[in-house]
Amino acid sequence: MSDPQYDIVAIGNAIVDVLAQTDDAFIAEEGMAKGTMQLLFSTEEAEALYAKMGVGREVSGGSAANTVAGVAALGGKAGFIGQVADDQLGAVFAHDIRAQGVAFDTVARTEAEPTTARCLIFVTPDGQRTMNTYLGASQFLPAAALDAELIQAGAILYLEGYLWDPAEPRAAMRKAIELARGAGRKVAFTLSDTFCISRHRDDFVKLLEDGDVDILFANEAEIMSLNETEDFEAAVAATAPKVPLLVVTRSEKGALAIAGGERVEVAAEPIDKVVDTTGAGDLFAAGFLTGQAQGRSVRDSLTLGAMCAAEIISHYGARPEVDLKALAAKRFG
Amino acid sequence: MSDPQYDIVAIGNAIVDVLAQTDDAFIAEEGMAKGTMQLLFSTEEAEALYAKMGVGREVSGGSAANTVAGVAALGGKAGFIGQVADDQLGAVFAHDIRAQGVAFDTVARTEAEPTTARCLIFVTPDGQRTMNTYLGASQFLPAAALDAELIQAGAILYLEGYLWDPAEPRAAMRKAIELARGAGRKVAFTLSDTFCISRHRDDFVKLLEDGDVDILFANEAEIMSLNETEDFEAAVAATAPKVPLLVVTRSEKGALAIAGGERVEVAAEPIDKVVDTTGAGDLFAAGFLTGQAQGRSVRDSLTLGAMCAAEIISHYGARPEVDLKALAAKRFG
Repeated sequence: MSDPQYDIVAIGNAIVDVLAQTDDAFIAEEGMAKGTMQLLFSTEEAEALYAKMGVGREVSGGSAANTVAGVAALGGKAGFIGQVADDQLGAVFAHDIRAQGVAFDTVARTEAEPTTARCLIFVTPDGQRTMNTYLGASQFLPAAALDAELIQAGAILYLEGYLWDPAEPRAAMRKAIELARGAGRKVAFTLSDTFCISRHRDDFVKLLEDGDVDILFANEAEIMSLNETEDFEAAVAATAPKVPLLVVTRSEKGALAIAGGERVEVAAEPIDKVVDTTGAGDLFAAGFLTGQAQGRSVRDSLTLGAMCAAEIISHYGARPEVDLKALAAKRFG
Repeated sequence: MSDPQYDIVAIGNAIVDVLAQTDDAFIAEEGMAKGTMQLLFSTEEAEALYAKMGVGREVSGGSAANTVAGVAALGGKAGFIGQVADDQLGAVFAHDIRAQGVAFDTVARTEAEPTTARCLIFVTPDGQRTMNTYLGASQFLPAAALDAELIQAGAILYLEGYLWDPAEPRAAMRKAIELARGAGRKVAFTLSDTFCISRHRDDFVKLLEDGDVDILFANEAEIMSLNETEDFEAAVAATAPKVPLLVVTRSEKGALAIAGGERVEVAAEPIDKVVDTTGAGDLFAAGFLTGQAQGRSVRDSLTLGAMCAAEIISHYGARPEVDLKALAAKRFG
């Protein structure tokens, strides 16, 4: 097998985020579950919610896409596969991820409908984000669109649980895992969101039990949801033996990793003010995966993840705004 | 004549801004004049420059549109007239200005080309912005699209010099001035940009000499360009007698106004760090005009302008991010 040319190759929904500030009353009135992601199933539903939204700002997003943007910002080599439509927001997504230095060559879908995916993100004064995703073109990523060479050229293939929602990308994910496995590459997977887990728990458990995942990312709520328990330690204990490397983020309580029965914990990075938590998990994964790709210890990889998460929650939007590479160099020399 | 239902009604280019950070070397390499606005005359030119741009964020912009957004944020009643295309960025522009509480009913242009106007804004580490505008659909604002009732219902009609570039909006401007004048309303005008003045100096001078402008906004460079002099005081002295109320902004040196021969000056508001000067003049005008609409003194109107400008340059983008109304109430009680 040849040496990998990329540190991380990710597959995910190709989404443009629309961020607006709101208050808790709005979240309650709309019946949203704060801090989670819900799917909007029609253009009409998406437009009705957008009409109620305040002044927005558009920034490229998508969970796994944010992660590879972070990897590139840290100086890593990254590639992305995701489906946009041939429209203005699709052009924005493609421009931004390439401008960040990520290889992105998935051909835009030329059908006029649906349009490029967008995520309406309501940010409350506490910095929490509540997401409403219109998957649009993203749900039509076909297995045929997978760039086998790119997947085989990545040391780690990174997949987001969110892609399990629509049928076509789900099939593409399975194909991608086969391709990566066949090339002797590692597979990393994020559980994405509690509601996403409740929709696909059996599939996610099976992925782990089949040994398809080398590195699993989850936050506290997700690891508990996966195990259908409210006991965090029990959830960690139940999942750790099923995966070579388990990484769990705990917001202000820091993060932990368990590999081969050994547990490592790091504290959260200090931060002045949480402005917007959008992308915190995505950028944590970027830092951790880059650390692993650079041959750092699990502890240092966790620290790099925590640093990237701290940067992203200190401003609006889920793509890095400072030179993460310089930040990392300052910390690790 | 009936009482005006709106404080300010503005006509301007309907633009979505694309902001990205860059360095001074890039500005120099591209031959841009830092701090100014240049027009991009073709889609190809716009796309070629966009391809060289870093990761962007999209926010609604447009000089006069930013101003009315600021007026609404201050609690004033505002309306806007400007031409978008029926595309995704057009929908973003319309959503944002309405979400801010501004009346906006100009019908989107249904022709597929050109697309909604966008402005590629390069922000250098000193906070200066260098703008590259692709006018797109905006240059096709026809006089027929003017909402006469809306114009006649505004206490002040606010026009941007930028609209003088394309022929159709220029004709629409002249028609709008007639409509406002006929209803006994005031006309405010901003000189916009030095290059814009060099393209239309004679027209702008004639507007003043014909008595078509009640309130003129300019910055230091613009008032000097208008008078083709490098002597600031000489420029002010030459223009002041031609307009009932002249307002000149001077960046960190504050601002001044001259009305009926009386000169009032205020200092700039203190600010921690200049992040992005995009919209500084636009929001200064928002504060000043709202002050005037609320019956405040020229001095207090200048102060309100300076406060709004200070808010806008402390973050990326040209639309307010804090509750300007509360900010004003805190200052003036």
